Amino acid sequence: MPVFPTEAVIREVGLRDGLQSIRQVLPTSRKREWIGDAYAAGQREIEVGSFVPARLLPQLADTAELVAFAKTLPGLFVSVLVPNLKGAERAFESGADLLLVPLSASHAHSLANLRKTPDEVVAEVARIRAARDASGAKTLIEGGIGTAFGCTIQGRVDRTEVLRCMQALLDAGADRVSIADTVGHAGPRAVRDLFDEARRIAGERFWCGHFHDTRGLALANVYAALETGVTRFDATLAGIGGCPHAPGASGNAASEDLAFMLAGMDIETGVDIAALLRLREKVARWLEGETLHGALWRAGLPESFARHAASAALTV
Amino acid sequence: MPVFPTEAVIREVGLRDGLQSIRQVLPTSRKREWIGDAYAAGQREIEVGSFVPARLLPQLADTAELVAFAKTLPGLFVSVLVPNLKGAERAFESGADLLLVPLSASHAHSLANLRKTPDEVVAEVARIRAARDASGAKTLIEGGIGTAFGCTIQGRVDRTEVLRCMQALLDAGADRVSIADTVGHAGPRAVRDLFDEARRIAGERFWCGHFHDTRGLALANVYAALETGVTRFDATLAGIGGCPHAPGASGNAASEDLAFMLAGMDIETGVDIAALLRLREKVARWLEGETLHGALWRAGLPESFARHAASAALTV
Repeated sequence: MPVFPTEAVIREVGLRDGLQSIRQVLPTSRKREWIGDAYAAGQREIEVGSFVPARLLPQLADTAELVAFAKTLPGLFVSVLVPNLKGAERAFESGADLLLVPLSASHAHSLANLRKTPDEVVAEVARIRAARDASGAKTLIEGGIGTAFGCTIQGRVDRTEVLRCMQALLDAGADRVSIADTVGHAGPRAVRDLFDEARRIAGERFWCGHFHDTRGLALANVYAALETGVTRFDATLAGIGGCPHAPGASGNAASEDLAFMLAGMDIETGVDIAALLRLREKVARWLEGETLHGALWRAGLPESFARHAASAALTV
Repeated sequence: MPVFPTEAVIREVGLRDGLQSIRQVLPTSRKREWIGDAYAAGQREIEVGSFVPARLLPQLADTAELVAFAKTLPGLFVSVLVPNLKGAERAFESGADLLLVPLSASHAHSLANLRKTPDEVVAEVARIRAARDASGAKTLIEGGIGTAFGCTIQGRVDRTEVLRCMQALLDAGADRVSIADTVGHAGPRAVRDLFDEARRIAGERFWCGHFHDTRGLALANVYAALETGVTRFDATLAGIGGCPHAPGASGNAASEDLAFMLAGMDIETGVDIAALLRLREKVARWLEGETLHGALWRAGLPESFARHAASAALTV
């Protein structure tokens, strides 16, 4: 039986992957409150936005301001998404700790969504790396490989192509690589097989798993990934966001459900789940009318769990 | 890495564990239609009801009739739940293939719910076994250990107590034993640890895992159980039922979501998922106003999956 890690990181991507599919623009003050509360609840890695043109995604137009705010919180590791060199340059200026460049392993999805082939994205990462090194910025570069388990446009995506893209991203100078199940095609066996090989290629530079709960398998997929030694997972509060191609479908892995699963496995995340559930209530009020997800919030923490957590806190 | 089984069984318990928590009584004709459609979709093990006094559970008053109908379907393995010897005698008469006697490993839950201690349930199983052997009936006896991962009344439930109950059930003459997470306290690591030990005690007589999705972990728990070699899981169409102590909480593992996960792992269940989704639509109409669960029905099967299934069917 595989040995589990003792610690894991839940990277909160609700402010980017979550909000980008929500039409009503959340005011910057509320986003700051969200970041502050998530930090107070123990979250230490947050993707706060995306450096894309504001006219394309008005929801994320305040990303630079949010990076600046997030960087005032000691020990918070702040990441952003960027589609290209131009976005990366804004990320360097903002002082973000990490920028994620999405690449789609499905050629059809890549062309439809990014208007580039996967290899053109790799070339862009090489340019971003050169610009980073020239600028002296310390921002880490992560290449995130999406549609890694299948695609709504192309259908099957070959595992060899995913791994080829990963190697190419590393060769182009990505400091980190990660894998995403963009449209909810992944199952736990496929995750285990692909992540095992990815770890063999990228070692500790294989950074993060990103699972959508489109068909209910996000947490099973995280569990399978944990068995391969991966210890960082994207998730969104209340599971917001997810699959724009399947309206109404369950969204991302819900941060609070993931935190509960990890706690039950004695894997330390530093997250205070009760505090996260209170933040969820607040964000749910802000996003009234939007479809939220997750299961824990309905049932609440088991009483025995709450007592356990309280006594653990007393011994600190 | 553990090796996965090539086949698994989804035991449909929606007509019992699902319907028992739904107030509007589903007419017998619709239950027959449900059983017939589930059978047509490839399901080969169905728990059709419970032999409890009709005044306590009017929803399940037609269990004998449903067993008789289900037994007309060739190769369908028909099970029922019974609380005691009296119910077991009705099960023998009905011709059910298996009866499940619930035992609660939490003493507090056992007294509150069954009005017996765990050891009194074990003694009842011994009487049921003696009656079965005397009657010449062929009905298998399964002892189902509930609240095996914790309990809303008692809190923690010791693993040693669960395993002690399991051994006692086997000693009392249970042909099969199974483990249930009655209130959604289980996580995948706990499942793996407990199921590993249970398999060591009961071998092939360890028959089935039963997971509620109260806190979103049902499928992750099934995945962990598969790694221990367990190949039979209770589930309910649309995830109905589940935790009566947490109203609104996500219910049982949803049969259709579980079938999708297993298919994605190349584990054969014999289930036609598209047919199961059509049955779900029908049952959802019948149960209008009730809380249903599951994720797959919203997003549907991935197109590539449907094409794969269609080409697989052509090669048969």
